[in-house]
Amino acid sequence: MKIQKPTGTQDILPSDVEKWQLMENKARELCRRYHYKEIRTPIFEHTELFVRGVGETTDIVEKEMYSFVTRGDDQVTLRPEGTAGVVRAYAENKLYGEPDIAKLYYIGPMFRYERPQAGRYRQFHQFGIEAFGSTDPGIDAEVIALGYAFYRELGLRDVTVEINSVGTPEVRAAYRAQLQDFLRPMLGELCKDCQSRFDRNPLRILDCKVDQHRFEGAPSILDALDEECSTHFAKVREHLTAMDIPFRINPRLVRGLDYYTHTAFEYKAAGIGAIDTIGGGGRYNGLVGQVGGPDQPGVGLGLGLERVLLVLAAQGVELPAEKPLDVYLIGLGEAADSALARIAYDLRGAGLLVDKDYTGRKMKAQMKSADRFRAKFVAILGDDELAQGTITVKTMATGEQTPVPLSGLAEYLKTH
Amino acid sequence: MKIQKPTGTQDILPSDVEKWQLMENKARELCRRYHYKEIRTPIFEHTELFVRGVGETTDIVEKEMYSFVTRGDDQVTLRPEGTAGVVRAYAENKLYGEPDIAKLYYIGPMFRYERPQAGRYRQFHQFGIEAFGSTDPGIDAEVIALGYAFYRELGLRDVTVEINSVGTPEVRAAYRAQLQDFLRPMLGELCKDCQSRFDRNPLRILDCKVDQHRFEGAPSILDALDEECSTHFAKVREHLTAMDIPFRINPRLVRGLDYYTHTAFEYKAAGIGAIDTIGGGGRYNGLVGQVGGPDQPGVGLGLGLERVLLVLAAQGVELPAEKPLDVYLIGLGEAADSALARIAYDLRGAGLLVDKDYTGRKMKAQMKSADRFRAKFVAILGDDELAQGTITVKTMATGEQTPVPLSGLAEYLKTH
Repeated sequence: MKIQKPTGTQDILPSDVEKWQLMENKARELCRRYHYKEIRTPIFEHTELFVRGVGETTDIVEKEMYSFVTRGDDQVTLRPEGTAGVVRAYAENKLYGEPDIAKLYYIGPMFRYERPQAGRYRQFHQFGIEAFGSTDPGIDAEVIALGYAFYRELGLRDVTVEINSVGTPEVRAAYRAQLQDFLRPMLGELCKDCQSRFDRNPLRILDCKVDQHRFEGAPSILDALDEECSTHFAKVREHLTAMDIPFRINPRLVRGLDYYTHTAFEYKAAGIGAIDTIGGGGRYNGLVGQVGGPDQPGVGLGLGLERVLLVLAAQGVELPAEKPLDVYLIGLGEAADSALARIAYDLRGAGLLVDKDYTGRKMKAQMKSADRFRAKFVAILGDDELAQGTITVKTMATGEQTPVPLSGLAEYLKTH
Repeated sequence: MKIQKPTGTQDILPSDVEKWQLMENKARELCRRYHYKEIRTPIFEHTELFVRGVGETTDIVEKEMYSFVTRGDDQVTLRPEGTAGVVRAYAENKLYGEPDIAKLYYIGPMFRYERPQAGRYRQFHQFGIEAFGSTDPGIDAEVIALGYAFYRELGLRDVTVEINSVGTPEVRAAYRAQLQDFLRPMLGELCKDCQSRFDRNPLRILDCKVDQHRFEGAPSILDALDEECSTHFAKVREHLTAMDIPFRINPRLVRGLDYYTHTAFEYKAAGIGAIDTIGGGGRYNGLVGQVGGPDQPGVGLGLGLERVLLVLAAQGVELPAEKPLDVYLIGLGEAADSALARIAYDLRGAGLLVDKDYTGRKMKAQMKSADRFRAKFVAILGDDELAQGTITVKTMATGEQTPVPLSGLAEYLKTH
């Protein structure tokens, strides 16, 4: 019986992997420019971390985690998102003791047991950044700018930013009561999801696609902000305006995670239908303390790379093609065989992209391979040439053939 | 309570991550030169894949797997090695249908529940390559050469290759009986591990560190090879010799996995004590069929990146340092704040490595940050300069200060 990949996972094949490499290289390069350093945390963490760090009443923790018990009786979970692990590592490794604030990024797989659908996998991949140790609204804006630049430099069009302030926990508690008062009379008529959120997380009710039309007169969290929250939010907007980053204030934006304070934001893209959010993040000033670390503020973002690919495809963005082969080597006759192995090894050692046949095909089939690989040159070694220490180099664009001494082959290929 | 990382896992922190990036970049670059394409398979697979693909009686499958049942009742396992998943993906995605042979590579985390010790983690990382579709001994040699070049180009010294032929299953069955005849009289005196391997996997007994001295007169598998096996093995050696790759024949080398046929090899490094194996691989002509694919031959290697780091450290190899910052921005006064956000955004958009302060520190502390980041320039913006549209640029190497128009700042920093 043929064994297949687990439901909801994907193989990223050579024909697709270059897009992934491109996204990752862009993320790494941008993080270098913005001075964020990579951190790598384990694929699984103690389950407790996500219960505390993501929030006990979130969909993720309630329904979507891959949790199991190890042979050593540890309760662990495949990470469903990137922030909790980075926060844990920041606290455990005492990165808050460094003289500079910690500006970190990660790229890697995350796991959620969700219903698979187009562009949504149970193993998916995120690029995220986290900045710890500063309450400056300028760094909220920097985080938003980095994500925006990521989409833009990949070639995505019409990306907009929605921002909101979700205040401090105190502000939110007062607003929550106000909102519940507004919602209570209509509670019986709301959808099931909304009803279940009424006590757990009423702010998310305003996000509901089904009941949207009922919420026109709902109180806005922006009216509930205290002065500190308002000033912080105004400063973030001021910075975004200074940077010419197009944004829209959305007072109903709360995100699916419990830990945000002050700034919350999302990126929206055109062309992929109703679920147009392609990434987001926010400030989380209480989170480090919540997982047992010191009271240090943080702000970050997370972007789903599968979604970026969807938008790139929907918008018809052309990505640069893979590098063609420098030379395809063809040997004629038994004696050429070992010599060709040596030639390939040396050319590759000199930095050239080289391949040859390994299935004993005829010369014509080998030339076809060279064409498929878009080889710039084909170099043909027969017994006669081997005896003379030369090789015949064919320039594929012109068809021109030249005998080249083996000792000067790398140089010839690099300079012609 | 503080939550900690799971036992046996590691955080790779910014101070260490550059070494990882360097290893990975080298692996990717070499694979480009050798014309291997990246493939990415899921972090977990159906447990059955590893039982069939790695071997029911191996330590990995018997004792070391992270296996669990998903919410959808699938029996899955975090991949303990890279080959099985790639073989599964090769078969499932019908890559054997392409006109050229499949030359693939992977880099990523693997998971084994082992006793943690120096350089050995329960989540560890491997770079591996797999070539499917060719029985040519030349590709065995190419695979060995790529691994050897990887170590060499990273700067490792005194890396040697040990090779062996473990024959075909038929050859091995005959040799196995011969070897059991030799071992049977001393069975009672052998160590426990050896005794338990006598029926399951007697070839691995010869690998035992404890009983090594008893095996001097043991029959050699090389004497048991049939003509096909001998010819293949001779050709591999001929290619390695042609490439000047130093190797040693070790007829007791069998590796810990059941699936090898013909070529088996390991890389050894000096300077890390008794366990000097830093990677290895071999040919596996039956494996694709074993997981339900077509009867296609394969050959590959897997290298543990944690071990490479150990050897790099033990041999005192210096790796290139991280890139310094191009410019550290300092703002004096309230009005400079938003202007600085814009300047940073633009400079980064122009490709420069830029940072600034986000904690309201005094200028002196900010200058210290610039030093720590080895910034080439510091650019200081006060209210007066802002009004004039200029910024003061200090070249850190010389202490020289120059007013530069804001509109020409990126250009100035790039060309000075």
